[in-house]
Amino acid sequence: MRRSDGEFALFSSILTQIEKKIEARRGSFRFRPYAIVKLYSHTRMTERTFNFYSGPATLPTPVLEQARAEMLSFNGTGIGIMELSHRSDEFMGVLRSAEQRLLNLLRIPENYHVLFLQGGASLQFSMVPMNFLAGGLADYILTGTWSEKASIRAAEFGTVNVVSSSKAAGYNRIPSSDELRFTPGAQYVHYVSNETIDGVEFPYDLEAEGLPMVCDASSNILSKPIDIEKYSMIYAGAQKNIGPSGVTVVIIKDDLLESGRGRQHGVLSYAAFANNGSMPNTPNTWGIYIIDLVCAWLEEQGGVAAIAEVNRRKADLLYSAIDNSDGFYTGTAEPGARSRMNVTFRLPSEELDAAFCREAQTKGLIGLKGHRSVGGVRASIYNAFPLEGVERLAEFMSDFAGRDRT
Amino acid sequence: MRRSDGEFALFSSILTQIEKKIEARRGSFRFRPYAIVKLYSHTRMTERTFNFYSGPATLPTPVLEQARAEMLSFNGTGIGIMELSHRSDEFMGVLRSAEQRLLNLLRIPENYHVLFLQGGASLQFSMVPMNFLAGGLADYILTGTWSEKASIRAAEFGTVNVVSSSKAAGYNRIPSSDELRFTPGAQYVHYVSNETIDGVEFPYDLEAEGLPMVCDASSNILSKPIDIEKYSMIYAGAQKNIGPSGVTVVIIKDDLLESGRGRQHGVLSYAAFANNGSMPNTPNTWGIYIIDLVCAWLEEQGGVAAIAEVNRRKADLLYSAIDNSDGFYTGTAEPGARSRMNVTFRLPSEELDAAFCREAQTKGLIGLKGHRSVGGVRASIYNAFPLEGVERLAEFMSDFAGRDRT
Repeated sequence: MRRSDGEFALFSSILTQIEKKIEARRGSFRFRPYAIVKLYSHTRMTERTFNFYSGPATLPTPVLEQARAEMLSFNGTGIGIMELSHRSDEFMGVLRSAEQRLLNLLRIPENYHVLFLQGGASLQFSMVPMNFLAGGLADYILTGTWSEKASIRAAEFGTVNVVSSSKAAGYNRIPSSDELRFTPGAQYVHYVSNETIDGVEFPYDLEAEGLPMVCDASSNILSKPIDIEKYSMIYAGAQKNIGPSGVTVVIIKDDLLESGRGRQHGVLSYAAFANNGSMPNTPNTWGIYIIDLVCAWLEEQGGVAAIAEVNRRKADLLYSAIDNSDGFYTGTAEPGARSRMNVTFRLPSEELDAAFCREAQTKGLIGLKGHRSVGGVRASIYNAFPLEGVERLAEFMSDFAGRDRT
Repeated sequence: MRRSDGEFALFSSILTQIEKKIEARRGSFRFRPYAIVKLYSHTRMTERTFNFYSGPATLPTPVLEQARAEMLSFNGTGIGIMELSHRSDEFMGVLRSAEQRLLNLLRIPENYHVLFLQGGASLQFSMVPMNFLAGGLADYILTGTWSEKASIRAAEFGTVNVVSSSKAAGYNRIPSSDELRFTPGAQYVHYVSNETIDGVEFPYDLEAEGLPMVCDASSNILSKPIDIEKYSMIYAGAQKNIGPSGVTVVIIKDDLLESGRGRQHGVLSYAAFANNGSMPNTPNTWGIYIIDLVCAWLEEQGGVAAIAEVNRRKADLLYSAIDNSDGFYTGTAEPGARSRMNVTFRLPSEELDAAFCREAQTKGLIGLKGHRSVGGVRASIYNAFPLEGVERLAEFMSDFAGRDRT
């Protein structure tokens, strides 16, 4: 929402009046100088900063605006959403709404549950084998840092068979389905559909010859249509495409659920969540509320197929900037494995990588430094990241490369 | 913040102008009708609803106001707190601040860590024995629903010795320390310092003859000064006295930490959190931010000793209303075990319990129904619950009892 200088002046005078009234009443409370002023001080800024963080990441501005508006009183209750009992009708309505929106957006069939857990995808690395491996054998496909970490956790609970690993090549590629030979009778096959750190993404829904397929889709869930029926379980930390950190969405097929060690493990059991409407204990109520708002926003954008188009355009802009730079920028992933969510590249030297990120920051392009384990540059451009910010980065890339050459 | 009718009129006219300006710019976005209007519509209400929920529970209004003000731009970054990378300087500053405030408020010595986990106290029921029982024996003291649940989880990982149980008496009392005989060489002793459902609270810091003491203080942490050195570990789901749901605060002594199965279990290991500044993976950043604000508010109130005085006054008001009702209200806990946080009582019949809660609700006193497992009435009055709301309830109790008699 851009505003003219004249409007700012009007706003300022109105705000000064409000502030005076409020300050006069405030008495001794000196928590921090304060609410209303700051509320508008950034609205008065013509734009928000473009934030390329890999997660927690940019959220849709209208979602933040609505959360702000309802902060002290959800739905006219006089009680904020964070203060409502998780068993209240109001919060139960929010949870059911978030669940229903996810069912609709991803066209999830009836023989699946949508669950809201805590602990991030990292806790899933342990919970999946605790519930479904339990001494047996599972196939793991290693395409990056996260799938490798998942396999390490699984090895505590049974035998891990590495079906495929691109580690030696620096996790720069995705195997084709022809390359993969699964273990007959394996408890499940595990893979990560998009590797946030390494910038590689499966361009297809993997199938596993009838074995249960378990997928960590933390960084590309809701970014494109997927064929849910090919999966027995999808899990995703919310903080990239779905909402804030602190909630993990789990989509799980009933037959996998029933095969698990349901009665054990308390809140480490999927069955406990499925049997108690995601509330075997108090969930992250705020996080689920924000997920509901993000899903509503995504519906407004036309749903998953529509946002996939935008995501494709955004990624193409950056990969074109790389490919048209006469080798100044080098994409770290093989072209066929390039992630639409995390665009990773390098400049001719580490010094230039650093100079690039430093200068970008002065232009309001924040969070471009690659993960500390791999270096380079990374632009994370999830669903809520605006096209305009990607255009700005592409321009900056062209400008920076041009200047460095001359 | 109460305002006069004249002020409302002024506000209304100012707001109408703001709304018009914003609506004119809004264009086609029709997410929900909207932000600014609602922002003030409840500020215009003379008060917020009094919310006696047992958790998630009332938060300090200034905390909500600040979170609202900073929603789209934390500390002038143009990025909301939910959107900031957990590795950004800004968020790391928030986490360190929350940690430091807790260290100060509770006077925690240097040989302890303060950690922020996820999964609620319920996950701690499993993590404590996973890390520290591991086939050995631990003593559990059962004083209510939550300590019983903790013991059930522990039995999956070793031998549970029930030192004391008041289950037969309906969990209405707290043992004196004389009554308790611990098992020499036990891995640890576990108890729950306040039972939210049953309304009983330890009036003293329990000691265990040199054994590591592990305490679930979810519902009374920060409500009064405690002697931290008597504990090897204290854990607490945040959603009662510390912040929103979705964060668990763990205070743990270094020697217990070092005795644990540190290298195993990924994010189910305390050592992983201690060794990585609470971030072996992405934490609940929003929840930690709110905790920081709640702790700042508590400092403003004068700290834990000062809030303990207020809590005592609040609880005394309600217990007096019970004791002065000529038997119309019956407290469910023995007088010496009465919780200052969760005041539980019954009326002469279940019908009257229900009528009481129903009528209270019409007077803006929400969330008084007892837990579904025990029935009756429960008023949860944690740190942030205002004295005024307790006074209103005490008045209503007197009024309701008087009318029922006549």
